[in-house]
Amino acid sequence: MTDDVDIVVLGGGSAGYACALRASQLGLSVVLIDRDRLGGTCLHRGCIPTKALLHVAELADHAREAPDLGVMMEVRDIDLDRVHDYKDAVVERLARGLEALVASRGIEVVAGVGRLVGPGEIEVDGRRITGRHVVLATGGRPKQVRGIDIDGQHVLTSDDALELDRIPESVIVLGGGVIGCEFASLWRSLGAEVTIVEAQAHLLPTEDATASKHLERAFRRRGITFKLSSLVDKVERTADGVRVVLASGTELDATALLVAVGREAVVDGYADVGVTVKDGLVVTDKRLRTSLPDVFAIGDLVAGPQLAHRGYAHGIFVAEEIAGLAPTPVRDEGVPRVTFTQPEVAAVGLTEAAARAAYGDDVECVSYDLSGNGRSLILGSGGVVKLVRRRGGPVVGVHVVAARAGEMIGEAQLITNLELSPDEVARLVHAHPTQHESLGEAHQALVGRALHGH
Amino acid sequence: MTDDVDIVVLGGGSAGYACALRASQLGLSVVLIDRDRLGGTCLHRGCIPTKALLHVAELADHAREAPDLGVMMEVRDIDLDRVHDYKDAVVERLARGLEALVASRGIEVVAGVGRLVGPGEIEVDGRRITGRHVVLATGGRPKQVRGIDIDGQHVLTSDDALELDRIPESVIVLGGGVIGCEFASLWRSLGAEVTIVEAQAHLLPTEDATASKHLERAFRRRGITFKLSSLVDKVERTADGVRVVLASGTELDATALLVAVGREAVVDGYADVGVTVKDGLVVTDKRLRTSLPDVFAIGDLVAGPQLAHRGYAHGIFVAEEIAGLAPTPVRDEGVPRVTFTQPEVAAVGLTEAAARAAYGDDVECVSYDLSGNGRSLILGSGGVVKLVRRRGGPVVGVHVVAARAGEMIGEAQLITNLELSPDEVARLVHAHPTQHESLGEAHQALVGRALHGH
Repeated sequence: MTDDVDIVVLGGGSAGYACALRASQLGLSVVLIDRDRLGGTCLHRGCIPTKALLHVAELADHAREAPDLGVMMEVRDIDLDRVHDYKDAVVERLARGLEALVASRGIEVVAGVGRLVGPGEIEVDGRRITGRHVVLATGGRPKQVRGIDIDGQHVLTSDDALELDRIPESVIVLGGGVIGCEFASLWRSLGAEVTIVEAQAHLLPTEDATASKHLERAFRRRGITFKLSSLVDKVERTADGVRVVLASGTELDATALLVAVGREAVVDGYADVGVTVKDGLVVTDKRLRTSLPDVFAIGDLVAGPQLAHRGYAHGIFVAEEIAGLAPTPVRDEGVPRVTFTQPEVAAVGLTEAAARAAYGDDVECVSYDLSGNGRSLILGSGGVVKLVRRRGGPVVGVHVVAARAGEMIGEAQLITNLELSPDEVARLVHAHPTQHESLGEAHQALVGRALHGH
Repeated sequence: MTDDVDIVVLGGGSAGYACALRASQLGLSVVLIDRDRLGGTCLHRGCIPTKALLHVAELADHAREAPDLGVMMEVRDIDLDRVHDYKDAVVERLARGLEALVASRGIEVVAGVGRLVGPGEIEVDGRRITGRHVVLATGGRPKQVRGIDIDGQHVLTSDDALELDRIPESVIVLGGGVIGCEFASLWRSLGAEVTIVEAQAHLLPTEDATASKHLERAFRRRGITFKLSSLVDKVERTADGVRVVLASGTELDATALLVAVGREAVVDGYADVGVTVKDGLVVTDKRLRTSLPDVFAIGDLVAGPQLAHRGYAHGIFVAEEIAGLAPTPVRDEGVPRVTFTQPEVAAVGLTEAAARAAYGDDVECVSYDLSGNGRSLILGSGGVVKLVRRRGGPVVGVHVVAARAGEMIGEAQLITNLELSPDEVARLVHAHPTQHESLGEAHQALVGRALHGH
């Protein structure tokens, strides 16, 4: 059996389904192939289930803080069956909504493992599907570490951790990036002893150093231990868990180990048919074309931040590109990023270090401490807002550490992406008492008009 | 004793202290007079203490919801002493910070009741203070209703409600505006039976009707009762509380009554010395000049939304005006407003009704339901994002109902105040999974590119 459609999309995650939806909206015929349910990592093994668990963690934190504020209670127990039911219900509801949406747009969804055979050709379980264009959107999976055997019970990937039937008494998190920090935060809130081992000098090492330091301070206060600039020598199973031996000789024991050293792209077989793959990623030009004619790659296959909303934007871009709308490419520096720890770390644009690498000494920063912000004080959350700009120019980076910082980055991404004048932003009236009014105050400080002690 | 300074500011609330700080920053000499501690209504009887109580209410809500999500607990008791201690500690910390800040700027603070004697002259406890300019910033107080006697225990103003030593078993809230709705929300969270009586057809009658309806639906689900389009005929004391008889004949009984029918400006004595006062407010021109030479009025004295951040912006404006910087006047339509109920209601710019009054049929709206937003689903919060624009033009109004909507309005106020192109906003990549990504999706819907079923 042969199909002949405008676009064959391989992979139904955020990137792939956005591409399919936008393409069908533009009148193109689409086949969307996925080995699993639509929604990909984000919906089934990433953003959504982790944020559901992190909300449970927030409730547990609130329960602990509440008596100090007069709400007298104690947590008797965490019922993990209920936790999973809640998480699964959130995922199920979104998954059904997505499936219904895709079905309503006349997109043919093919369930099965697709294999790129050549330009314009994909094979799924013996069926050959041909299209004028192919869009590769196969996403990623947890990266493994040589010498560490994942068993799903004591040595875990993030996929395992999401489904774990217990809260580990103690856990070592290998990797202090976004995924490692989010699991560290949530397990700590649920009562675990947590130690993070990070090879680089800071947690969230790709974020601005000020943000990392604020997160580290908050984690320390929460009793989360971390070993920075630390390499793992070996991992051994013990009677009741795992032992991690660091290169320094330090031995760490725990009942579980999460391996969260990043994610690798799923590029199986691409190189065999002539797609250029480098460092495990598909090489594309700025318009997301691979080395094969009319074959595009989007989302986590493409070097850059592995974020659902970037993949989503990639998908829309490629659909519009194929439709001949000549869209503007997605700029990675314009993509906001949020780590949903307690406190949250949200950012858009350049770190101070990246700005200095780009502009030398011609960089100005303002760090605005949230300890004087009324709303932060009410929430019991400290934190910081940091602005980075080229002297006299627009703000090129915004970094926020605070409870609920994720919602503050909406304003920040407008500021950096539209290169708004700092003076203009400083003039605007921000709502009081909110945390985001600190963005206004930081801008006032940047243009030399801060009223609050800077 | 006589002083002679550049500016005498009468009233140390948000408007007055912002004016004093900005003036001193610009090199002007300032005397700041207040009868009480600096910080005014916002810090001592408004924004801050109510938001502290509303955070306690949120914790109580979370405690009730937590078992469904697997965090097994129950609330034993609300310890009101602790609640007040927490609230008072937040206020105290901010008040001390403010006092230290003002002191550090060389601003002379005079404690006492100031009385405007004439242009450039104010008398405080027999001391006459003269300045080249006078700024009136005496703010407001709860409006009373003829025939309803406030006793501070059963018949309350919002000032009394903040300090109440009990959670009323049942309470009638007279007035469904911001203050009435916030107290209704927080008392309900703390276990009270609440009935709101509102004269107009909707809660938050000055907000967009869509927002009001979403709040009403949420309140109904929470078991908050409300009587809309209802006038009060009389209020009687009963053995254990109050009885409110509506014009319709309906009788409502409760252990307490909150009178929250709005706030009136404190304009005592102004008219006597020639300041034009109309409908209880000081009349100013667009540059906030009163009818007396070199006498300005700011904040809640001036017709428009009675909001701390508007007053704050007024204060800065007048300081810059006096310093000769020719600042741009504060536009009321550009001032964001947040009602911190559960869910929160946040808005900036025109309601649909106001836009239609201004532009006739040439108005387009998009309402984006948050029930499909992943983050809202996780938080258990429905809600809506509504955009209002003049056909083909920029967005002139944004209305959000959602848990934590207050932090989403930062982005919205940039959009309306800077008249950003909807197409530009729709193109930007919003962080996932957040609630504010719905602002991006609503803009996509507005320009005809919504991927999610609209």
